[in-house]
Amino acid sequence: MTRAPLVFSLENWATPRREQLLPRLRAPVLDAVPEAFSEACVYPLVSGGKRVRPLLTIAAAEAVAGSVNEATWAAAVAVEYIHTYSLVHDDLPAMDDDDLRRGRPTVHRAFTEGTAILVGDALLTAAFEVLARIANPALAIQMVRELTDAAGHRGMIAGQALDIGMGSPISDLSSLQDVHRRKTGALIRCAIRMGAISVGASESQLVSLTTFGEAVGLAFQLADDILDADEDAGEEGPPSYVRMLGIDETRRRAEQELDWALASLANLDDASALRSLAQFIVLRDH
Amino acid sequence: MTRAPLVFSLENWATPRREQLLPRLRAPVLDAVPEAFSEACVYPLVSGGKRVRPLLTIAAAEAVAGSVNEATWAAAVAVEYIHTYSLVHDDLPAMDDDDLRRGRPTVHRAFTEGTAILVGDALLTAAFEVLARIANPALAIQMVRELTDAAGHRGMIAGQALDIGMGSPISDLSSLQDVHRRKTGALIRCAIRMGAISVGASESQLVSLTTFGEAVGLAFQLADDILDADEDAGEEGPPSYVRMLGIDETRRRAEQELDWALASLANLDDASALRSLAQFIVLRDH
Repeated sequence: MTRAPLVFSLENWATPRREQLLPRLRAPVLDAVPEAFSEACVYPLVSGGKRVRPLLTIAAAEAVAGSVNEATWAAAVAVEYIHTYSLVHDDLPAMDDDDLRRGRPTVHRAFTEGTAILVGDALLTAAFEVLARIANPALAIQMVRELTDAAGHRGMIAGQALDIGMGSPISDLSSLQDVHRRKTGALIRCAIRMGAISVGASESQLVSLTTFGEAVGLAFQLADDILDADEDAGEEGPPSYVRMLGIDETRRRAEQELDWALASLANLDDASALRSLAQFIVLRDH
Repeated sequence: MTRAPLVFSLENWATPRREQLLPRLRAPVLDAVPEAFSEACVYPLVSGGKRVRPLLTIAAAEAVAGSVNEATWAAAVAVEYIHTYSLVHDDLPAMDDDDLRRGRPTVHRAFTEGTAILVGDALLTAAFEVLARIANPALAIQMVRELTDAAGHRGMIAGQALDIGMGSPISDLSSLQDVHRRKTGALIRCAIRMGAISVGASESQLVSLTTFGEAVGLAFQLADDILDADEDAGEEGPPSYVRMLGIDETRRRAEQELDWALASLANLDDASALRSLAQFIVLRDH
C-alpha cells in the first residue's frame, strides 16, 4: 500500500478494508431466527456494493488518528446496515418497485415481500445493536444520537417521504437540495462524523469533517444527476439538478463542491483516502 | 377489582398515566418532515390502544422505587413505538393485510402503503432516539441493548419471521411457545425490565421482574388464544394453544402462569399495579 506523497491508489486502500468489513457485516445477523431469515438478512449485505459510506467512516477515522478501532468498525457496519435497509424497503412494490439491485433480484423478488419488510426492520434494529456493543457507553450513545438524527424522521426517512410526494412539489433548487440533503446527504455526513468521533476527533477536526461531509453529500447527488442525465437525456422526468440547471452548470457545481470538500481537509494529517473517495464519488463512471 | 388491604382500581391508576403518556408519544415525531408525514407518524400512536406495555414499564418502576423518572418515560415511549411500528408493518398487504386496527383504517389505508412502510421505519428509529436522550449514558445504552435484544432478529422480528412461515412448521407446543416467546413475550418482558432498570432495580428485583415478565408474556398469549377460540370455535386455522391443548387446559395454564407471575412479585414493595395489570391481561374480555 503506497501513501502520499507517493501515488495513492484508492483501490489498493479500499480492497483490504472491504475484505475486513464483509465478515463484520455478516456476523451480527448470523444468529437471526430462523436460519432462512438469517440468510435473507445476509443476502442484501453481500451483494458487492462499493461500500462508499463505511469506507468514508474508516477514512475519516484514519484522517484523524492514523488508524481505526472497534468503535470505528461498529460505526461502519451500522451505517451500511442503515443504507442497506433503506434500499431493501425502497425497492418494495409500494415504493420504487425494483426487481433488480446490483444485477441480482431484490430481496422481495429473491424471497417474499413480507420477508423484505422484516429484513429491512431487522437491519435497522441491528444497526443500533451494533452501536450499543461499543464498550464505552458515552461513545456508544453519542453514536446512537448521530445515527438517529441522520436516519430518522428529520433525516433520511424525511427525504424518502418528500421523495414519494408527501411535501410540496419540488419546484425550485432549494427544495430539491432539501430533499437530497435529507435523503442521501444526512447519512453520508453521519458516516464521516461517526468515523471521526470513534477515534476522539477534536471539535475543530469534527467541524472540518462535517463541512467535508456536507460538500461530498451534495456533490454525490449532483454527480448522480449527471449520470442519470447521460442515460435519459432530454426526457421528461422527476426534478433533478440537470433539468433545473442544465448539464454544464451541474458539472460546474459538482466540481465546485469537490473543491470545497478537499479544501476543508487542510488541517488533517493524512486525508489521502478521504480525498480519493471524494474524487471517486464525483468523478465515477464519467 | 378489589385488592388487600385497600381497594386498588386499575382504571384509577392507569387513566392519569395514559394521559401523561400521550403527549410524550406525540412530541418526538412532531418535528418529522414534511408536516403530512408527521401527521402520518402520529396517527397510529393516538388510536386509543390500552397501552399495556408502557403501563407495565411504569408499574415496574413504581414497584421498585415508588415513582418514575424521565428514563422511565423514555422507556415507556420507546416500547410503545416498537409495538406500534410492528402493528403498522404487520397490517401491510404483504403481511396480514388488515384494513382496520382498533376500529380505524390502518395506516396504509388512511394514507398509502409507501407511507405506512416509512411510518414504521420512522417509529422504529425514533424509539432509539428517545432512549438516546436519557441523560445518563450508561443507563441509556443499557436500555438500547435491552430493546435491540427484544425487538430484533432474535426477538420480535424473529417471531414475525416464524409466523410468516420462514421456519419449520409449528407442529408442537414447544415450537408454538417459541414463536410467541419471541413475537410478543420478548417485548413484554423488555417493557418490564426497562421500567425496573430506569429506577436502578437491584439484581434480585430484576430477576423477580424478569420472571414476572416471562409469565405475563406467556399468559398474554394463552389468553389471546382463548379469546380467538371463542370467536371461531371448531374452525380450522393456524396453530394455537386451544387447538393443541383444548380450551380447558389452555384456561388452566393461563391461570397457572398468572399465579406464577403474582408469586414472583413477593419481594417488591408495592406491586399493586403490576398485579392488576397481570390480571387484566389474562382475564380481559371474558
